[in-house]
Amino acid sequence: MSTPTPVMPDHPRLRPLGIHEVTLDPGFWGDRQQLNAEEIIPHVEHWLERLGWAGNFDLAVTGGLPEGRSGREFADSEVYKLLEGMAWELGRRPNPEMEERFARLSRRVASAQEADGYLSTAFGRPGQRPRYSDLEWGHELYCYGHLIQAGVARLRTYGEDLLVRTAVAAADHVCREFGDEGDTRVCGHPEIETALAELARATGRPKYLQQAKKFVERRGHGNLGKIFLGQEYFQDDTPVRAAEILRGHAVRALYLSAGAVDVAMDTDDDGLLTAAAQQVRRTLARRTYITGGMGAQHEGESFGADFALPPDRSYSETCAGIASVQLNHRLLLATGDPLHADAVERTLFNVVAAAVAEDGHSFFYTNTLHQREAGRRPPAGEASPRAASGMRAPWFDVSCCPTNLTRTLASLAAYVATADDQGLQIHQYAQGTITTELHGEPLRLLVETDYPHHGNIQVRVEQAPQAWTLSMRIPSWADGARAWITGEAPQMVEPGMFELPRPLRAGETVTLDLPVAPRWSWADPRVDAVRGHVAVECGPLVMALESPDVAAAAPDAVEAADADVATVRADPRHPLTLTEGQVMLPVRRHRNSESQWPFPARRPQEPDDETPLAHVPMIPYHRRANRGPSTMRVWIPEVPAAIQ
Amino acid sequence: MSTPTPVMPDHPRLRPLGIHEVTLDPGFWGDRQQLNAEEIIPHVEHWLERLGWAGNFDLAVTGGLPEGRSGREFADSEVYKLLEGMAWELGRRPNPEMEERFARLSRRVASAQEADGYLSTAFGRPGQRPRYSDLEWGHELYCYGHLIQAGVARLRTYGEDLLVRTAVAAADHVCREFGDEGDTRVCGHPEIETALAELARATGRPKYLQQAKKFVERRGHGNLGKIFLGQEYFQDDTPVRAAEILRGHAVRALYLSAGAVDVAMDTDDDGLLTAAAQQVRRTLARRTYITGGMGAQHEGESFGADFALPPDRSYSETCAGIASVQLNHRLLLATGDPLHADAVERTLFNVVAAAVAEDGHSFFYTNTLHQREAGRRPPAGEASPRAASGMRAPWFDVSCCPTNLTRTLASLAAYVATADDQGLQIHQYAQGTITTELHGEPLRLLVETDYPHHGNIQVRVEQAPQAWTLSMRIPSWADGARAWITGEAPQMVEPGMFELPRPLRAGETVTLDLPVAPRWSWADPRVDAVRGHVAVECGPLVMALESPDVAAAAPDAVEAADADVATVRADPRHPLTLTEGQVMLPVRRHRNSESQWPFPARRPQEPDDETPLAHVPMIPYHRRANRGPSTMRVWIPEVPAAIQ
Repeated sequence: MSTPTPVMPDHPRLRPLGIHEVTLDPGFWGDRQQLNAEEIIPHVEHWLERLGWAGNFDLAVTGGLPEGRSGREFADSEVYKLLEGMAWELGRRPNPEMEERFARLSRRVASAQEADGYLSTAFGRPGQRPRYSDLEWGHELYCYGHLIQAGVARLRTYGEDLLVRTAVAAADHVCREFGDEGDTRVCGHPEIETALAELARATGRPKYLQQAKKFVERRGHGNLGKIFLGQEYFQDDTPVRAAEILRGHAVRALYLSAGAVDVAMDTDDDGLLTAAAQQVRRTLARRTYITGGMGAQHEGESFGADFALPPDRSYSETCAGIASVQLNHRLLLATGDPLHADAVERTLFNVVAAAVAEDGHSFFYTNTLHQREAGRRPPAGEASPRAASGMRAPWFDVSCCPTNLTRTLASLAAYVATADDQGLQIHQYAQGTITTELHGEPLRLLVETDYPHHGNIQVRVEQAPQAWTLSMRIPSWADGARAWITGEAPQMVEPGMFELPRPLRAGETVTLDLPVAPRWSWADPRVDAVRGHVAVECGPLVMALESPDVAAAAPDAVEAADADVATVRADPRHPLTLTEGQVMLPVRRHRNSESQWPFPARRPQEPDDETPLAHVPMIPYHRRANRGPSTMRVWIPEVPAAIQ
Repeated sequence: MSTPTPVMPDHPRLRPLGIHEVTLDPGFWGDRQQLNAEEIIPHVEHWLERLGWAGNFDLAVTGGLPEGRSGREFADSEVYKLLEGMAWELGRRPNPEMEERFARLSRRVASAQEADGYLSTAFGRPGQRPRYSDLEWGHELYCYGHLIQAGVARLRTYGEDLLVRTAVAAADHVCREFGDEGDTRVCGHPEIETALAELARATGRPKYLQQAKKFVERRGHGNLGKIFLGQEYFQDDTPVRAAEILRGHAVRALYLSAGAVDVAMDTDDDGLLTAAAQQVRRTLARRTYITGGMGAQHEGESFGADFALPPDRSYSETCAGIASVQLNHRLLLATGDPLHADAVERTLFNVVAAAVAEDGHSFFYTNTLHQREAGRRPPAGEASPRAASGMRAPWFDVSCCPTNLTRTLASLAAYVATADDQGLQIHQYAQGTITTELHGEPLRLLVETDYPHHGNIQVRVEQAPQAWTLSMRIPSWADGARAWITGEAPQMVEPGMFELPRPLRAGETVTLDLPVAPRWSWADPRVDAVRGHVAVECGPLVMALESPDVAAAAPDAVEAADADVATVRADPRHPLTLTEGQVMLPVRRHRNSESQWPFPARRPQEPDDETPLAHVPMIPYHRRANRGPSTMRVWIPEVPAAIQ
């Protein structure tokens, strides 16, 4: 059966359920889908008009290029990502007024396409650089990739229209220009690979898959020109098939890997799949923050060495989080390994949810784990540098993240559940409904939960086939989870996929109880940067300590400067507690002393057991920076006595 | 009296002794001066010719620009820095053959100067961008700065010649173009400020000082265009007078501050001097590595937040180290505060000495404190990216550091001693001779030491005035230092300036005994990145643990992978020892265990007191990366039991 969803391999191990099969009701994610439709998408439309990035397409028609062009080389892609976001949103919930806005924007884009399918507002006109003259940095194929993904979204949610035809014409152009007889280079920024693979799936035309395969295979052989940041930056150092781990620019690495998984799945290339899966497993084990964030380094927006995960200025680009979700989703479909659904969950709650403000009007481009100096309020009326501030900004000079959020939030339902010959698997827990068919028989489930605030998840069967198996993901952190069918005895369930022992019938309910009580977490000793520190998690949520809470917890005992998060030490020999729903961190105060040289020959004084114990509230990391400029940290230094 | 030295304020608190007054004999620094003359300078000449950066000047004459131009916008400055290095070297020790090379290169530079004094191979010709059309990134004034400093070096060591006239013509051009009636902007890269101040001193023409003052005062008011990295990058965010700490691009910040100190000294501007000194003290207390390295961040080659000093990939650019030496030297002359001589010493031994290979043919551009992955051998025949490798490279695409080393090593003697009305102060200890006059009376001292290998320093008086005071710097780390005049009782001396209680007479010797035995050092608790780690220092030398020593210390007990520096924990409850002159670190072995997710809910196992104690040799940090690809670390994780 056909179901609109962003990733639809020809014969995956697990079939993804689409956005008509899964609906999200009000709750953590349902609310964010609503916010996306009502606030984020209009906000993005506003800025794309205001800065002229949408207007570039009009100028292409009126002859106003290159003089009047705005934005960077890849500005076109932001318009395409918005169109993709609108297409998923319109597929999720019809909206005639947004439909009209979508059609208008599609027409502007389509008008700028040239007769041979080429489409770029940045290259190819008199006064601009020639087509494909700068594949390293020009982003032409990257932009097509986003155009094609928008076209795929529209084709699946609506059917053929002008945007779909525009995307197909661009894809045909790419196949002609970059075939074996043509230009055999690749784009400096991967993205076209997944897009072409998906277009092959959506149209049934294998030539796009073959072109995607060419782009995956060509890379890694020094195909691109030398750049300052090294060939590793755009993964042109080692072929995908031969690499051991993700490296270089994080978004590039993750998009490329997603494309490789797509190609591997649809060409039955087990070698390529195994290589990609192994690289991702290794990246999760060695180059991923506790938030799921990837890409530690500001320089080159890139992965660092294994275990080099400093919380200070951790880059963790929002788009890298989104790319990791896309990649891990593909690997889940390809392998069924719940490790990848764990990664999706962690990243959605702690990167994607953290990146957008509660009002949907400002965003993080980078997601640090340690804000040492209180952030500055970015200017409301202008685009901010991508990494300058400790607070969310309305727009960026490079503004890939807000538009990427629109398509991710609109298609969130796609990550919830999958099906296979045995039955149905639930991977992500959110209030909503799952309606599909198994072997032609209807299945309808209601999921009731306010996860992740509580760990109680009830799945009520409204309709079900005779023989089927329900499986539910038990997250890797869920030690002590229990499940039971109403009326039967609870049983302990282990992390991994929990298969119900018998088919559930209509009217039956299964309850899963996940332990979301606050827990301590430590780091592998090779993450030297957080040695002697401890973190706190509640279910899938990483917690953060923020200066307003440090101040509020001891309003008169300390000076103003002592409200800084640098002035507390966690004492994990005492329990984390809950007070009125707030996680309370047991701490002892530390007063920093000043000196002319910060590397003394004596061990600095730290709080000991004579220092009174206090309790400071923590907030979920995704809610940080909502109370004005503040300092913040995820990893809290421990009192020395606790360490041994 | 006139004495050739790089910094000669009009009326400093301490008068710097020049390179004719202090000579360095074979020893730690004397050997490096020799290496500079015989190996480094010729190596630099070779690469400047090979890559065409010197040839750019010829092309300017023959009309071969812009087509044939090589190198970045600032390539001219490398030639100037080499000329400065040669000028100091020729001043230090005549060498007719090098004199000839110097004259030849000077002629090529001078030929490219235009009639009005303008000199740049990168701007102003047909096909090039117009003069001063990109002050943010063009580096035209920066290049003049280095030309003028080369001219000053030549004027002081030789007298007027073609290079001096070229430099003066450039300076006159700058004064005409950038006066109050002309272009009132500044250069994106400070450097012209110190150069003009020094030229004013060397020529006696105050107009250059006035121009330097203008450049210092103009900056910080948004004088330059907006850039991605923010105005902080080139210190255009806050006026020098109002800033609290050094920030942004480290070399830019340090050169600017040096210029501000120069201007403050020669215009008796106490407010400016106080502001600059306070910023540097704060920077030393909060934004400086234990090596003296400054500028933690790769992105923007910049200072980070206070105490954000991750050893991983610490940038610590070699040029920032050199700039810090120049700046602290100026502040020493201006204030007499030995804190600044301490900083000079630390930085010379652990940044400057570390940056150059033992054969003088390869260099570090960045100086990390933690090499996690064994470095790669850079290609011998081509320029390397500046920060790509864990090993020294023969040359870089941006190659400011090797040329900067030539001038620093050639003029090293300038940092050794100063004089004032009371007498003579020795700040740096090296085998050599000090010959000067105090109140017109000759003074001659022999310094005998193999410091820093041993802490024994003997100063023998060969000639001395009737009344004078010898002062010697006791480094801040030198707890337990002793001093005595031969035949008298030793006395304990405290860190700071130690004044001998009576004038020494010809024939007398004073001995200073500095405790250079290995010692443990810890970090301020706010340097979270090295929490739970300890470092080792010997006198002024920071020590490093390198994988070949880890391997050698346990050749059969461990697998090859375990030779990595990640597999040991220091146990500072046990003493550091010396075995055949090598510092032995007491350690316990740690075997890292692999997992799918590196953030467990249990504290990871670490070595306890059941784990056998072993001893692993350490090397001085400046000798790292001399034995092929290796891993290395300065901060060693401690065994948990030691921490409390």
